[in-house]
Formats: sequence, C-alpha cells, structure tokens
Amino acid sequence: MSNTKTPISAGPSDLAVNEREQGRSFQPKFDAAGLLTAVVIEESTGRILMVAFMDREALDRTIASGKAHFHSRSRGKLWMKGETSGNTLTVIDILVDCDQDALVLLVSAVGPACHTGAASCFYRRMDDGRLAPVT
Amino acid sequence: MSNTKTPISAGPSDLAVNEREQGRSFQPKFDAAGLLTAVVIEESTGRILMVAFMDREALDRTIASGKAHFHSRSRGKLWMKGETSGNTLTVIDILVDCDQDALVLLVSAVGPACHTGAASCFYRRMDDGRLAPVT
Repeated sequence: MSNTKTPISAGPSDLAVNEREQGRSFQPKFDAAGLLTAVVIEESTGRILMVAFMDREALDRTIASGKAHFHSRSRGKLWMKGETSGNTLTVIDILVDCDQDALVLLVSAVGPACHTGAASCFYRRMDDGRLAPVT
Repeated sequence: MSNTKTPISAGPSDLAVNEREQGRSFQPKFDAAGLLTAVVIEESTGRILMVAFMDREALDRTIASGKAHFHSRSRGKLWMKGETSGNTLTVIDILVDCDQDALVLLVSAVGPACHTGAASCFYRRMDDGRLAPVT
C-alpha cells in the first residue's frame, strides 16, 4: 500500500470545504435569504460602527464603487449607506471569514454611521437586564 | 391650541420605535428565522473574532451562564462555543445596536476562536478579487 493515496475521508465535499476555508478563491456563501452578514469597522479606530446585510448586488456594487452598499431586510431593497444622509462609508479593506458567509468592511466614515445620529449603532450596553449608554 | 399636545406624527408606531432605539428596555428583535446577529470581539484587544447567530434560547443561556452560546444555522441546534474544543468565550459585556437586532459580545477567549485553529475567523482579506492572508 502506498502512503500517498488519497485518504478515504477526502471526498469532494471535504475538498470543497477545505478550499472555501483555506483557499484563495472568493466564494461568498449567501444564506437561505440570499444574504451575507457585513460588520462595519472604522479602520482608523477599530471601532465597530454597524452590522448590515448584503445580497449579491450589494456586494458587487460595494466592490465596484468602493462605497458600502447593503440590502435592507425591512424595505427589501438595495441601499447605499449615506444615499440620503450623505454619511457614506468608504471601504478600505474587506476581511472574509472562514466559511465565507460574513465580511468585515474596514471603512472610513463620513459623519455618524447610525441613522439615530450616533457615531456607532452600538451606543448601549446590557446592564443587569436593562440598557445603559456606552460611556 | 396647546403646545403640549401630542404631535400628530407620534403614533404608537413612532413611540415603539423611539423606545426600541432610545429606551432602556431590552427588546431583542429576532428576524424571520428567529435569530439575532452576534459579533464577537475580544475585549482586551478590540479584535473581531467571529460572527454567529443567536435564537432566544442561545441568548438566554449566554446571559445566564456568562459563556457564549449560539444557534447553528447549518446544524439547526443550540451550541456552546467550546463545548467540544474547550475554546470557550467568557462574556464580559454585551452591546446592543439601535434597532436591537444585533449584539456585540465583548469576550475573553480561551484558545483560538475559529474552528480552523486560527485566533480569529477573519484571517483572510480581499486582494484584487482573490483572498490573501491577513498579515
């Protein structure tokens, strides 16, 4: 018996998983609703600004334009962050997770990222079952 | 006419939205699949470790135990991070976003957070349409 033969466990499925997790090919894995999770982090500070979702169109437009686009689950449509407020997010880098169903957008933000006017959507923290401002 | 009367626009829906976005009541907003997005960030470094999902049970167990629990979309079941690997995540703080459909878990991690053995699931970045290691 040769030591170089393919192990029994290395079927096509294992190879596909290995390529997705370790390879250089970008194979975004959209969920049942056709969405990826996108975590937006300010590149200069490392601060998390918001979490949103991208369908294929939003992903393609983000990559093509360099401005963050998302898919609104509540409105069921594409939107460019800042299209009405002017508070756009310029994408500096995109990180991809192990199974390629989540992205981190490292961005430069113009103005507050949150529609409430807060710099970040994460302006509250859990405090004994209630919410308190992040100080 | 009194200046103190309730503005026409402040109907129950506006009040509910205002309470969800600005109030102190924790009102987690689960999506159509019954899930919240959970972004896991290492408290000591600010580094993003992983993104996962929580249903009500995972959220309740996380809060009760102080160890991160999630709902696996692929396996359709509750799991405690590290239940087999031992690489648990101890929750130090939980941040809540504006519309309460995403959480940040600020954690202390035992061992690598990623099932691949990487410290973070985000070990690759987009590089001209391909993936490259984060250096």
